[in-house]
Parts: sequence; structure tokens; C-alpha cells
Amino acid sequence: MDDEYRHLSEEPLDSTQVFRGKLLDVRCDRVRLPDGAERLREYVKHQGAVVVIGLSDDGRMLFVRQHRYPLHRSFLELPAGKIDPGEEVLQTAIRELREETGHVAGDWRHLGTMHPCVGYSDERIEIFLARSVSRASAPKPDQGEFLDLLSLSLEDALAAVRSGVITDAKTVTALFWAEKVILAGW
Amino acid sequence: MDDEYRHLSEEPLDSTQVFRGKLLDVRCDRVRLPDGAERLREYVKHQGAVVVIGLSDDGRMLFVRQHRYPLHRSFLELPAGKIDPGEEVLQTAIRELREETGHVAGDWRHLGTMHPCVGYSDERIEIFLARSVSRASAPKPDQGEFLDLLSLSLEDALAAVRSGVITDAKTVTALFWAEKVILAGW
Repeated sequence: MDDEYRHLSEEPLDSTQVFRGKLLDVRCDRVRLPDGAERLREYVKHQGAVVVIGLSDDGRMLFVRQHRYPLHRSFLELPAGKIDPGEEVLQTAIRELREETGHVAGDWRHLGTMHPCVGYSDERIEIFLARSVSRASAPKPDQGEFLDLLSLSLEDALAAVRSGVITDAKTVTALFWAEKVILAGW
Repeated sequence: MDDEYRHLSEEPLDSTQVFRGKLLDVRCDRVRLPDGAERLREYVKHQGAVVVIGLSDDGRMLFVRQHRYPLHRSFLELPAGKIDPGEEVLQTAIRELREETGHVAGDWRHLGTMHPCVGYSDERIEIFLARSVSRASAPKPDQGEFLDLLSLSLEDALAAVRSGVITDAKTVTALFWAEKVILAGW
């Protein structure tokens, strides 16, 4: 794809892992810029993630409230989670919806991909629509993960974006898709 | 705000800077979980950023195409950039629109805030609508920054999300806002 945009493109010269924690893998690469100059680029290596729009037959969407330590507050978000090594992304979506909400879906559809943080992370998030969700069990979050489960109508979710209650970009991006699928037939 | 959500909340115990590069400041904090257990939380400290919907009187929006090294390809994005230390956010928006596109606006409005990466960054992005944009000078990107300038109608931008050409989450989130402001009177 970038053949067309060679005049913008940066060529990798070498790569160093500068931090490897339990969660984060941070790299610093030396690159060649389009004008021939060299520069360092620092970024997070990420295994990718999914976000799930879990829609019930009466038009409500599953949400979780979760404390996000970097911002020292809780966020209202769509269910989401990281892809395990070797895991097929649809399986990640099915697993995360089940673990975070205890729900299963009658029908799954992949809507698209988003990139949450192109400046300093290679993370991609695959967006899934899960229709006809129903409760199958109690939620089983990961160890150290604490969640409240909620449901909102599309209208209430959009109003929560407008009022500033929902600000998580993966959730707003997925709601953009949800509205288009539900109201515009995408 | 989190008094209401104390049962989810994580208490900071101590904080260590584990990497400080030219771009990234990475921290690892020890925290107390709601169940009393201790855990480490790794995240990026970020100074915050702005994204600008630059709308001309004939209904076109300014976009930039930029190579994003972490993903080794270029992205079609709305103009955006980091807040300088001590800079007022509206000034950041005015400055970034001018630097990246050479345009000035007749009217500025703050629409809302997004959080691109709540799992591992404290970054916030302030969303601005710039109306009646017009070309005032040549773009003056930062050193080492290479951009193509484009303009798209709202309709074409939404179609580019649908087709997977636009996947940058800050851009989709801002387009969500743009559509609501333009078509729904938010």
C-alpha cells in the first residue's frame, strides 16, 4: 500500500527493546526519513485487541465500567480485551464477551479495524458486532480485573458521548460503527 | 467522580519511571486493588494532544496523510498534535492546524475530549471544530515530519471509514462528532 506514498515513508535501520514489563514492550528504532536524515522512533509493541458491540434483541448494548489506572478514574466502555498469542480474533471476541459480561451471542459479524494510537503504538483493535446476546453465566473477569456490567440503548450511549460521560476512543469508534450498522444499514 | 465507584478503584502505592526517551515516558506503579491485593500497572505518561476538524465553507474537511512508523504505513488522519508545556489547548489547535495545513479558521469550537488508549496511556485528546478554514500560508510541519494535505467531504470521509481506509481512532471519533454537529445540531 505504501508504494504510492514512498515520499512519506520511513525505513527501519535497527530496533532496540528499551523496556519489557509484564504488560508493555517498548521499542526504540533508528529509521531513515524521506529526506535521508536519521531519527529515533519510540513505540509500544502490542499483540492487538478486540472490542465487542453486544446487542440484545430489545436494542440494548452491553457496557462495562472499569477503573483505568493511568487516568485514575473509571470509564464506561464496550467490552474489550487483548488477543492471546495464536488466538483467532473471533475467538477473542467470543471469549472476552463471555468473560467480561457472562453473555453469548446468536450471531457474530466483523465490522472493521481501528488503530487507537498510531503515534506510539502498533496496536490494532478489531471491531465485532454480537447480535442477540443473552446471559449464559456470571461474568468471569481476569484476576485483578474489576468490572461493573451495564446496558444502554444506542440513544443513551450517543447521549453519553455528547455529555462527555463516554470518552474512550475505542468505544466511540465502535459506537460510530454501531449506529451506522443499526440505522444506516452498513 | 470515583467516590461512587470505589469498589472498582485502584490506589497508587509508588511509581517508578522505567523508560524516558525523547518521545515516551514510561512508568510502572505499584497499586492496591479493590480486593486489597497489590499489582503493577505500566503506562505511558503523555502531555495530551488536540485533533482538529477543519471545515471549509463549501463543506470540505482538511486531512493529512502521514507515515506512522509503529505500523509501517501511512494513515489518513485529521490534523492533530501534542500540547506544548504550558500551552493553552485552543492555541495548540490553532498552531497545529496552521503548521500541518497552512490554514486558519474563522471560528473555533471545543467539542469534547477523548481518551485514545485508557489501558496503557494517560493521553487525552481535545477535539476542536474549526469553521470557515482558509489557506493562509504553506504548511510548516515539524522537523522530521512529512505530510500530504488533502480535503474530503463529510460523505467521502464516512465512506472511507466504511471501506477501511480511515482506521485511526482519533480521526473516527472526531468524525463521529463532526457528523453529529453538522447533521444533528450537537
